[in-house]
Amino acid sequence: MKKRKSLEEYKSGILKGDRSSLAQAITLVESTLEEDRKLGSQLVQELLPKTGNSIRVGITGVPGVGKSTFIESFGMFLLNSGRHVAVLAIDPSSQKGKGSILGDKTRMEQLASDHRAFIRPSPSGNSLGGVSTKTREAMLLCEAAGFDTILIETVGVGQSETAVKNMVDFFLLLMLSGAGDELQGIKKGIMEMADGLVINKADGENVKASKLARQHYLQALHLFPPNENNWYPKVELVSSTERTGMEEIWKMIKAFEESTKSNGFWSKTRANQRFKWFEESVHHMLFEEFSKNEGVRKLLKEHENEVASGKISPQWLAQRALESFLNN
Amino acid sequence: MKKRKSLEEYKSGILKGDRSSLAQAITLVESTLEEDRKLGSQLVQELLPKTGNSIRVGITGVPGVGKSTFIESFGMFLLNSGRHVAVLAIDPSSQKGKGSILGDKTRMEQLASDHRAFIRPSPSGNSLGGVSTKTREAMLLCEAAGFDTILIETVGVGQSETAVKNMVDFFLLLMLSGAGDELQGIKKGIMEMADGLVINKADGENVKASKLARQHYLQALHLFPPNENNWYPKVELVSSTERTGMEEIWKMIKAFEESTKSNGFWSKTRANQRFKWFEESVHHMLFEEFSKNEGVRKLLKEHENEVASGKISPQWLAQRALESFLNN
Repeated sequence: MKKRKSLEEYKSGILKGDRSSLAQAITLVESTLEEDRKLGSQLVQELLPKTGNSIRVGITGVPGVGKSTFIESFGMFLLNSGRHVAVLAIDPSSQKGKGSILGDKTRMEQLASDHRAFIRPSPSGNSLGGVSTKTREAMLLCEAAGFDTILIETVGVGQSETAVKNMVDFFLLLMLSGAGDELQGIKKGIMEMADGLVINKADGENVKASKLARQHYLQALHLFPPNENNWYPKVELVSSTERTGMEEIWKMIKAFEESTKSNGFWSKTRANQRFKWFEESVHHMLFEEFSKNEGVRKLLKEHENEVASGKISPQWLAQRALESFLNN
Repeated sequence: MKKRKSLEEYKSGILKGDRSSLAQAITLVESTLEEDRKLGSQLVQELLPKTGNSIRVGITGVPGVGKSTFIESFGMFLLNSGRHVAVLAIDPSSQKGKGSILGDKTRMEQLASDHRAFIRPSPSGNSLGGVSTKTREAMLLCEAAGFDTILIETVGVGQSETAVKNMVDFFLLLMLSGAGDELQGIKKGIMEMADGLVINKADGENVKASKLARQHYLQALHLFPPNENNWYPKVELVSSTERTGMEEIWKMIKAFEESTKSNGFWSKTRANQRFKWFEESVHHMLFEEFSKNEGVRKLLKEHENEVASGKISPQWLAQRALESFLNN
């Protein structure tokens, strides 16, 4: 990593909308060095008054549904409508150096080469707790740099959808029409999180099937009780390659914004998300400290198989491990 | 509380199937005194080789669906089939002294007065983490005392369904037929957790509607992908007051047992549940220690409103609080 800048340098760079300062600051919050991370958090804290003025959209869907192509099309539509678009990704399984950066940029060629957009691949890390905090801080930094539309892509691994749901205003689920197996492959509970469904690849011979799928999804969505915020999820058809339907998606998101801002759920949800972030961070950091504790590691190594096989009570081992942790 | 017995006294009492020893031992694991709880955990640890030989069934449904009446009918059916039935409940919102014991016993009059059954109301406690550990330990104690069928009722508050799902072999969801609003009131994600659905009150004029509801549910369930364990949830009709359908429920549960035992998911699920229990316990106990830390409490009191309103970064506060915790 390049020599660290001062807090003031990062701050003024970001506030001027300088991409390079923004990118470096995100590297800071993503760093594995404690000193970097602390500086990063301090930076976020100082920039906080300049954050929050964006619409945060989470985008998910199974692999193959066309998330990147959709984000490319939707992102270009948004740029051309005068929005300032930043794209972040969350993928707890991603490993830097495995080509994820190149991968992301290749997948969104036009958007990546457009100077108006800012694209940042998923931070690396094995635990979702760590990765979510990095993505949340990166999002705030983007907002401070003037981006008013944040798209957060989740790869749909592990619990990453829930993590994204907890940091965005609007959660969009991409689906495909298919031979009756529309819901196949989708993880349990995901559909219930969605504020909007998009049927992608609704073009050519697919149009008819997509319209039918739309009916099925609307029916399925009506099986669930209405959301607390009084929003009924909508279903739209798009073709990312033909770039149709983008305006409808944006209208849906804006309608959601208007509706939840007027009934108070917009700010209520954000306040809840902040508390949740705090609690999640504490849980994550406590567990991290716990897991790297020498005594704990020794105990777990000795006994984990016995826990799995039912020879040792999980509670009993948890208590021993906690004692060991607190006494160090 | 009565004078504490020795570990050996509890142990031998429970292994003899003595109800009073069992009840007292459960009081021990439910105690708020650390000394009691430690003795309780030690007891569970020592009895562990005698546990696990039961079928653990979670039962949930919205208030008014008739959970207690169902458990009474189903419990009596099981007793008369020669099963040894223990009924536990989980309700993080319950407060001892508010009549929850009396309430439970009144609601299951026949079962409660049958000497073959063991009924224990929900332990008190405000945090689900604490309550789940107590219920899990109580379940193991019941098994050591010879109960081979554990019914765990959840009241459907907060995240209690997930907690119960994580401690049982089979998860049963009770529903009602109704005028097209069968799913109303049911919390998101619950239906997807169910291994079996029961339509209660399928009697008299309700029979026709219940049969129709059964079709709807079967359709809805087919929208979801099959479970990893290859089990397809079934839907059965029962009348708890007329006591019909009980045998079908039991057959469904036994079919599940047979199927998952033969494909290995029975023991795999239990091993996963043990690990999850360990992790949850650690998270819960760490957070408990954290929350009662003086410095942490002071920080939170000072800053929680600023977190909610977005004036302080949740991450920044989490780090300060963690430092304060680790330095004490």
